[in-house]
Amino acid sequence: MKIDVLTLFPEMFEGVFGASILGKAKEKGIVSLQAVNFRNYANNKHNTVDDYPYGGGGGMVLKPEPVFAAVEDLQVEPEAKPRVILMCPQGETFTQRKAEELSKESHLVLICGHYEGYDERIREHLVTDELSIGDYVLTGGEIPAMAVIDSVVRLLPGVLGNETSAVTDSYSTGLLEHPHYTRPPEFRGWSVPDILVSGHHAKIEAWRREQSLLRTLRRRPDMLEKVELTAKERKWLKEMADSARHSDV
Amino acid sequence: MKIDVLTLFPEMFEGVFGASILGKAKEKGIVSLQAVNFRNYANNKHNTVDDYPYGGGGGMVLKPEPVFAAVEDLQVEPEAKPRVILMCPQGETFTQRKAEELSKESHLVLICGHYEGYDERIREHLVTDELSIGDYVLTGGEIPAMAVIDSVVRLLPGVLGNETSAVTDSYSTGLLEHPHYTRPPEFRGWSVPDILVSGHHAKIEAWRREQSLLRTLRRRPDMLEKVELTAKERKWLKEMADSARHSDV
Repeated sequence: MKIDVLTLFPEMFEGVFGASILGKAKEKGIVSLQAVNFRNYANNKHNTVDDYPYGGGGGMVLKPEPVFAAVEDLQVEPEAKPRVILMCPQGETFTQRKAEELSKESHLVLICGHYEGYDERIREHLVTDELSIGDYVLTGGEIPAMAVIDSVVRLLPGVLGNETSAVTDSYSTGLLEHPHYTRPPEFRGWSVPDILVSGHHAKIEAWRREQSLLRTLRRRPDMLEKVELTAKERKWLKEMADSARHSDV
Repeated sequence: MKIDVLTLFPEMFEGVFGASILGKAKEKGIVSLQAVNFRNYANNKHNTVDDYPYGGGGGMVLKPEPVFAAVEDLQVEPEAKPRVILMCPQGETFTQRKAEELSKESHLVLICGHYEGYDERIREHLVTDELSIGDYVLTGGEIPAMAVIDSVVRLLPGVLGNETSAVTDSYSTGLLEHPHYTRPPEFRGWSVPDILVSGHHAKIEAWRREQSLLRTLRRRPDMLEKVELTAKERKWLKEMADSARHSDV
């Protein structure tokens, strides 16, 4: 997979593209990652990529020419159109499902604005997807682009080793993870639960499932609607929810 | 404000802490930003910070000692406890409201796990907040920590100049932004809407408000519930929503 990021701050990506899973995926040749300064595609002598908005008002607006020119220059072959993703607050909220969809593409181009707005013609005639990573205000699209890239690349075949796939498996249950404990067995007077050192495998599994269910109930009850549960688990969760309501009174 | 990030990959933060708004806020002395490798606080000769989970299963678990030791070492004074924020998928979903809350603190410590789980005692006895930036799987807490830091620092007094505050203002309407256009007036046959070059200020404002409302209706109808609208706007939006439903048929 080829991933290009258009940004005015390519240096922001150096640390992230070199480290950890992304660095390893690059080394293995599974993905090529490039941060491209689209100021290089400015078509005027002052190298400006933004200008004042028509109709007045504060803020600057990214001009269409440099962005179109950059995307067209990065395209591998005339027929092989990349997915062109605009990072912006107005975009569709990014989810794991979207990450899975994007991981099947061969070429992604992510466009990062940086407190400027985008000329609407970029949105209408160039981009295929608009993405937001959440309901909070960020200075630019760079950090959101990193999030999208990390979540997509880790889904590519051959990227994850055994040490990480376990975590993914847990996510795929659709529940929040159960508590984890490691050595020391006692730390500042706080002990590991007896059950985990009991050696009784079936009981440990049951405890973990229960803890996962409870944590999901307390923190993200919305997730429980989409999860496959046994009738017994549904009943137990309902009792837990009821008793929590009573103890609030 | 002082912000410390505990991570095994401090190099990931170099580009981000140096660039743009964060770099400027640091230069101005408004914030101190530090990425601390908590491996430096490992209390064993092999410098390990993780270990196998009690009860078996895949994956590794971050040990409590190095994380407690790092947070305690970073604390400025015994009485001045920092907000200790665990970046994790099980956390509360990060929002702009949370960014505003955190921007009033004097010291934040963000803890980034990296595909390992956290020993539960860290969660129970050290952290004050658990945050997730969205429903997608990332390799570690580093990119989420960057998102939290960027959104918090840009709220600190003196950080944003005029060029950026406009965007914040627009966000504060609770609606998605209207389309922006800049030069050239015609690009590849696509023109700027006439209204924007009309010079008629009141009409431009009305068009922009309408476009904001329409875009929010189409993309994020959930946001409309929390916005203050005039009776006329509510009526118009209802008509728009009804006609959209009919044209779907």
